[in-house]
Amino acid sequence: MANYRAPLDDMSFLIDEVLDAGTQLGQLPAFAELGVGSELTSALLSEAAKLAGDVFSPLRRVADQQPASCSDGKVSITPGYAEALQQLGQGGWLGITADPAYQGQGLPELYGTAASEMWNSADMALALAPILSSGAALTIAAHGTEEQKQRYLPKMHSGEWSGTMNLTEAGAGSDLGVMQARAVPEGDHYRLYGQKIFITWGDHEACDNIIHLVLAKLPDAPEGSRGISLFIVPKYLVNADGSLAERNDVFPVSCEHKLGIHGSPTCVMAFGESEGAIGYLLGEENRGLACMFTMMNEARLKIGLQGLSIGQGAYQQALEYARERVQGGVPIVQHPDVRRMLLTMKSLIEAMRALLYSESLTLDLAHSGPEADRPAQQARIDLMIPIIKGWLTEVGQELASLGLQVHGGMGYIEETGAAQYLRDVRISAIYEGTNGIQAADLVSRKLGRDSGATMAKVLAAVAATVAELAQSDNDSLLAVGRALSATLEQFQGSTEQLLKALQENPDIALGSSFDYMMQAGYLLGGWQLARAAQVAQQRLAEGADNDFYRQKLATMSFYAEQILPRCAGHAGAVATAAGMLHQYPEDWL
Amino acid sequence: MANYRAPLDDMSFLIDEVLDAGTQLGQLPAFAELGVGSELTSALLSEAAKLAGDVFSPLRRVADQQPASCSDGKVSITPGYAEALQQLGQGGWLGITADPAYQGQGLPELYGTAASEMWNSADMALALAPILSSGAALTIAAHGTEEQKQRYLPKMHSGEWSGTMNLTEAGAGSDLGVMQARAVPEGDHYRLYGQKIFITWGDHEACDNIIHLVLAKLPDAPEGSRGISLFIVPKYLVNADGSLAERNDVFPVSCEHKLGIHGSPTCVMAFGESEGAIGYLLGEENRGLACMFTMMNEARLKIGLQGLSIGQGAYQQALEYARERVQGGVPIVQHPDVRRMLLTMKSLIEAMRALLYSESLTLDLAHSGPEADRPAQQARIDLMIPIIKGWLTEVGQELASLGLQVHGGMGYIEETGAAQYLRDVRISAIYEGTNGIQAADLVSRKLGRDSGATMAKVLAAVAATVAELAQSDNDSLLAVGRALSATLEQFQGSTEQLLKALQENPDIALGSSFDYMMQAGYLLGGWQLARAAQVAQQRLAEGADNDFYRQKLATMSFYAEQILPRCAGHAGAVATAAGMLHQYPEDWL
Repeated sequence: MANYRAPLDDMSFLIDEVLDAGTQLGQLPAFAELGVGSELTSALLSEAAKLAGDVFSPLRRVADQQPASCSDGKVSITPGYAEALQQLGQGGWLGITADPAYQGQGLPELYGTAASEMWNSADMALALAPILSSGAALTIAAHGTEEQKQRYLPKMHSGEWSGTMNLTEAGAGSDLGVMQARAVPEGDHYRLYGQKIFITWGDHEACDNIIHLVLAKLPDAPEGSRGISLFIVPKYLVNADGSLAERNDVFPVSCEHKLGIHGSPTCVMAFGESEGAIGYLLGEENRGLACMFTMMNEARLKIGLQGLSIGQGAYQQALEYARERVQGGVPIVQHPDVRRMLLTMKSLIEAMRALLYSESLTLDLAHSGPEADRPAQQARIDLMIPIIKGWLTEVGQELASLGLQVHGGMGYIEETGAAQYLRDVRISAIYEGTNGIQAADLVSRKLGRDSGATMAKVLAAVAATVAELAQSDNDSLLAVGRALSATLEQFQGSTEQLLKALQENPDIALGSSFDYMMQAGYLLGGWQLARAAQVAQQRLAEGADNDFYRQKLATMSFYAEQILPRCAGHAGAVATAAGMLHQYPEDWL
Repeated sequence: MANYRAPLDDMSFLIDEVLDAGTQLGQLPAFAELGVGSELTSALLSEAAKLAGDVFSPLRRVADQQPASCSDGKVSITPGYAEALQQLGQGGWLGITADPAYQGQGLPELYGTAASEMWNSADMALALAPILSSGAALTIAAHGTEEQKQRYLPKMHSGEWSGTMNLTEAGAGSDLGVMQARAVPEGDHYRLYGQKIFITWGDHEACDNIIHLVLAKLPDAPEGSRGISLFIVPKYLVNADGSLAERNDVFPVSCEHKLGIHGSPTCVMAFGESEGAIGYLLGEENRGLACMFTMMNEARLKIGLQGLSIGQGAYQQALEYARERVQGGVPIVQHPDVRRMLLTMKSLIEAMRALLYSESLTLDLAHSGPEADRPAQQARIDLMIPIIKGWLTEVGQELASLGLQVHGGMGYIEETGAAQYLRDVRISAIYEGTNGIQAADLVSRKLGRDSGATMAKVLAAVAATVAELAQSDNDSLLAVGRALSATLEQFQGSTEQLLKALQENPDIALGSSFDYMMQAGYLLGGWQLARAAQVAQQRLAEGADNDFYRQKLATMSFYAEQILPRCAGHAGAVATAAGMLHQYPEDWL
């Protein structure tokens, strides 16, 4: 198979033309000196594309066959991975959106998202390393003391050091309240004891040091989730001058044998099996979960992104195969059912990307936009995060599976590389909160906390687009507007049903939360795709003679015709959530 | 994980009460002496359940980790597999539905289906061996000379010998017309030369001999698919007295490294690399494809069955986990979204089984029913086969994925055994004709050849059930009737659109064929589930105080409420097939 080639035209169309980052972000104080605009977009994206295509992409199959392994308290990673991570750090990509005061690049999240899309399409297992590292750095940036930030962040942003997140314990998956790990005060630091599981990139030798962020309980801490604190536990202790001191008492015990992402070491980590692991409190005592959630919330966007990335990788490979493979005298790309699969992939990829990039802009506005507008943008991104995490990773699985299917029998042979996309992406529906947890978060917390007010605002914006489409003089856009309008109305009905159920019996709302989340994803993805199509139509109306824009309109039409009808199925499930889904006796299962 | 336990109550309810095999089949001359009825059902099913649960099931994980391998022209299989296959043969299961004149058991397909469901739930890779063997035996039974049948069938039915099907070549997957393998006449036999790929259970040492059925071209054969003949190529030649003679020139070259079914050796087979492989013509010259299709058509039912089987295996394991795993103080089976996943699995499993068993009965009636009725039954089973193959294997994938999801992070760890279901079942959507080919067969051939007349008959039967439900004095059945009625009407609309498209532009019909096939599956599965619910309701009305029957009604209600709405999405896609799906320029992909 060929190396991954980043879809630069689609990316810059969204960033520069649809979202108009130059105008939306370029004037903001945080970004004023960066020259946000199409030149920057082009320069950044083409640099990232080279690294992703030439360095990351060739490692994807290698890592699948030569996975990470653990022995004698050390993890060995795939040959070539350490060098790739060094190039990533040297290119400044690890701190791309981080604070320049600590050697970050200070760029908008929108660019970080585009770059991360490329790393994850090229090799998702490898791309997890920067996701975890920048998540840890973000947590230190948000909750650390000035000294902690000075000590850790510059080296994490440069890639000299990496970072991990240590939450899960055996017997306590998504339920962090029953945690066993404990931290005992000792002078200016703590000694940590306990075991953590599922620690992504928990150990390796690719960096000089690893900064573990670890949840643990202080002695006499309150019961449950309000008694958990967060600690910085470096693999090697750090001297006052920043040089490395002795090895800390934290070691990998084993690496999991997983369905996919074989290159990513998923470790069982042992803290304090000898003298106790030295750790430093991050943030306030007993506020560890809240600190961790800052990071987790944004990390969920990056996991949703993996669904898009894998869809894109799978699509490129499937399309290449479909153009080459001849059956019945013609390349199979001409077979109507293969067309259906490829167009389903393409249109869903573009809808996912349009939605994700749009909400990356929302995140930028929540962080760096005009002060007065920030709470509204934050409310919107909070609402969108579970939809993006859940919908994109569900669709990513479907697309990886379609990509495999296009290959026929060859897709089932591992050497083809199509099956790996399916195996890799499968974890994205599970980690950083299973998609069931995303759906529950969407309904119970994000809808429930303001009785649907933020959702109503988003739907008003969808309705505004629908109204614009209804005024269009383009037949395609008129038809798209009609389809979107019907889907919106249906979704408004589902939202009302859920809000009512939340009042009357939250279990009923939770039962239909997954279908509601999927319905939201298809609608909102379609909305953003329609906004992109409007821009394309405007360019054509202005005289641009460019098939790229015509293609955007055609893809939107396909989505409206073939994909939006799926919402009816989900709406039907939401409408009957109080029925047998709720009433079925558990012991009849 | 616990061993597989066959759902005997569900199986015998369908066979004895819903389909009433005793009355439907017991009186037919072919089965009159067998005593078809609930005693036979119970005896057969419980025997099969022991073999599946105690012998096959423990091998599933072993085979995944110790796959088949090939070296020096020999295949080694998973430890324990040979003994399991011997038990299968000794129990008479290989010839369960075969002609007693050649040491078959002569039982109805309905029983063969139930037994095969169990083998495939317990270990799909192992269960492929009897599927291929009995497929080869069936082909010899249908097209062989009396001498060929006497020579090969008894030993294939006893399991002393196994059988394979050799169709595919590199460069010609589903497109058999461009075949390279050739057969040169030599006295009373032929010499075969060529290579075949993807040969399931192509070689092993578990049986004394392997009877390969091989497609090849005679010298001067017509071009394309009308120039292909079928040959019997034994691994060891067979003397006139049935004893084994010298090794034939057919050898495995390698085993594929596959996503799943690791225990099943998928071989590249080399014929005639030295002196030419000796083969014997089976059926007429140049009629090989037609002979093979006899077998393939029925084999497709067995592949559809794998979707059901894997769904059932995945469900049992997920349910066990959900009852044990505590999160937030309660077993996760009580979490509303986990309930949703488990109920989705359970209701779809029951719908798949109800449809598959019903059509196994149709197959029995087509083979052994009253003469005058056979053509109609054959037309119905021909129509149903692509729907069953396609829909069951698509749903099987969804269910395997849901089973994994119920396990959360543990599902992604291979040792849990949940991911294997997903990897194993994935092939079922591809082999024996990809699901795209099934959909094309459904629309172009099965609908097209009689302009929808057979489908109209099936839909009239669905309408009759709907009418009965509308007369019910049970509220659940009334509601089910309304849901089924709306879904039927929608499907009638899709059928009309397709028939029209077939006339006007077959490519448009083919473009929406996959959605149409899925829509058909959900509707017809729901129909058969409703018929089962009617029987359950009748038993309750007769005074049976039995939660088993109440459960059948509740499961049907869940299906009507939560699953049938999916048809709207597929109907929407069918309705717009002439739009951008058809019109999108290929080079814009």
